[in-house]
Amino acid sequence: MKKYIPFGFLVLLSSLSLLAQQRPPAISSPDVHADNSVTFRYFSKKAQRVTLSGEFLKAPVSLMKDTSGIWSVTVPNIKPDIYPYSFFVDSVQIADPNNTYIFANERFKRSIVDVPGNTPLVHSLQNVPHGKIHYQYYNAKTLGRTRDLLVYTPPNFDASGKSKYPVLYLIHGGSDTQETWTKVGRANLIADNLIAQGKAKPMIIVMPYGNVRPSPMPDFTKEIVNDIIPFIEANYPVATDSKNRAVAGFSVGGGQTLNIGFTNTDKFGYICSYAPYTATDEFKKNFTDWNPNADLINKQVKKFTISVGTEDFLYESVKQNIAMFQEKKIKVEPLIVSGGHTWMNCKLFLAHSLQEIFK
Amino acid sequence: MKKYIPFGFLVLLSSLSLLAQQRPPAISSPDVHADNSVTFRYFSKKAQRVTLSGEFLKAPVSLMKDTSGIWSVTVPNIKPDIYPYSFFVDSVQIADPNNTYIFANERFKRSIVDVPGNTPLVHSLQNVPHGKIHYQYYNAKTLGRTRDLLVYTPPNFDASGKSKYPVLYLIHGGSDTQETWTKVGRANLIADNLIAQGKAKPMIIVMPYGNVRPSPMPDFTKEIVNDIIPFIEANYPVATDSKNRAVAGFSVGGGQTLNIGFTNTDKFGYICSYAPYTATDEFKKNFTDWNPNADLINKQVKKFTISVGTEDFLYESVKQNIAMFQEKKIKVEPLIVSGGHTWMNCKLFLAHSLQEIFK
Repeated sequence: MKKYIPFGFLVLLSSLSLLAQQRPPAISSPDVHADNSVTFRYFSKKAQRVTLSGEFLKAPVSLMKDTSGIWSVTVPNIKPDIYPYSFFVDSVQIADPNNTYIFANERFKRSIVDVPGNTPLVHSLQNVPHGKIHYQYYNAKTLGRTRDLLVYTPPNFDASGKSKYPVLYLIHGGSDTQETWTKVGRANLIADNLIAQGKAKPMIIVMPYGNVRPSPMPDFTKEIVNDIIPFIEANYPVATDSKNRAVAGFSVGGGQTLNIGFTNTDKFGYICSYAPYTATDEFKKNFTDWNPNADLINKQVKKFTISVGTEDFLYESVKQNIAMFQEKKIKVEPLIVSGGHTWMNCKLFLAHSLQEIFK
Repeated sequence: MKKYIPFGFLVLLSSLSLLAQQRPPAISSPDVHADNSVTFRYFSKKAQRVTLSGEFLKAPVSLMKDTSGIWSVTVPNIKPDIYPYSFFVDSVQIADPNNTYIFANERFKRSIVDVPGNTPLVHSLQNVPHGKIHYQYYNAKTLGRTRDLLVYTPPNFDASGKSKYPVLYLIHGGSDTQETWTKVGRANLIADNLIAQGKAKPMIIVMPYGNVRPSPMPDFTKEIVNDIIPFIEANYPVATDSKNRAVAGFSVGGGQTLNIGFTNTDKFGYICSYAPYTATDEFKKNFTDWNPNADLINKQVKKFTISVGTEDFLYESVKQNIAMFQEKKIKVEPLIVSGGHTWMNCKLFLAHSLQEIFK
């Protein structure tokens, strides 16, 4: 029988060599080291200047080029967390071409780096039972289109209907997507870890896509109440009373959380707003001249928190939001931490909420 | 009662104005028009030259800058499909910052544009029942780590165990990820559409992460057989005989498909290899001096297809693969189409396979 060597190896090698000429070399970036330093690399023979911007840095740092065209810099001693970063190649901002992990966002392309450290963090992948994330389509009737949403189901999820799970509706920030809470915020791993420790109840977390363009934002409040909640209740074994339903969100989603929650206090027993952005027509309409029945609301809403970092660019605004609710006699628990308008803080806020809701 | 106007509007506006100075303006890109032309836009005041590369173009085209720093080009008359594209800003290749849809890949960052056309394509989001994609972790024992995989379940999936579904194991290309078959290949929508038309059987599609580095590639064959198949069979209601199990893959994954399939013909009733890359030690080991029992294999494997485009850089190599199997008297159905080593072709290959398997 004829021996099939080299199976087109020569053709293949010459094709690959052609391909190799077109593609930059495979380089490793980011390289996270055991001492919490990270080496970032970028390949370019033509660039004049390459800098690294990252939320672990106070100011951009320059990468140095070696003779092969590989630019690199090692940043020492990064506090363990997950951070967005990008390169500026001359004046062009880019995600790290060699890093698969991208910040899910509509406006920019940044990469994310996970510095795990030696002690597992609340968002770390740990050796515990894991839940699943379901990607699915639903009929967004209010908006007149088919949309995506993500649904986290907890470890050992019982789909039979024998258990009725509480549900958290969790909304991303302004130019984020329905994937940002898992891809950047690791909501699923935070839930896995806290459930494993008995610190959070097994729950379902629904992560819709909150942006509505060009339609007005109040449509998203209707979308949640009229379309998403019924869809989830028709397709998952969930408890349908308000004490088993929570809403939370970050930034624009934090503002949406206040709008959704306080126009539906009969439906949401827990309202958790993270660094809310409230300079919207909807917020103005709902809360200017607001005359709430505080006694009723304080009975309906078991827990209402507003979280923010002291370096957040919205810090002053959020303090005014908190003061407004206090003035109206609405019981609000402020959670003020250090840090800025970041997803590092989002993860902490979510971890806090998951331990507070459905108790 | 004190009136809370302006709720920190002034603080907010000044903060946002600061933020706005740091961020490029929101622009719309890509804009897909009804006549199948697409406008691509990029903002830069500093760039000297911006070009567009895309798999719908034979050669890069230049964008023109307006006085506000917005570069744009309109490409007419694109054949409806989903295409990868990128910008070159001076010499820097980037994904489109304003496009959320990124090609899931480890080596490059390209965007994808969907030109839907007037007639729904096999991968289009249509008004049919939709399945779900499950993102989950599993214990990859062979590789000694926890890995991700994606599992498509069909519309109206019955989790009770009353129905036993056939399973397709579907593997991505060399620097792709476990998300590429859904994010770029729309495997879920192709399945939804073909199932709705009665052209494909309701099935489960498992999309693992096929890259093994630095370990040798044969470990992935073991990983599929020893870890992934048992994991799926323990967690999903699936039929476990070989006539209800298929393996398919593209490029490096197409080569893996041949290795996995033909070292396990007792386990896979269907083997579908798309533009296989076979210049690997594993392929050489398995198929050099291969002396198969063709009669037995042709009984075990109900359908074996090798698909490739005539402009694929692997075309000559794939033709030799086909000739080798024919020489060994293994029944192989070649599917030769036009086009290159692209995900446009992958979608066609998968659509073809889904109509051929489990019949």
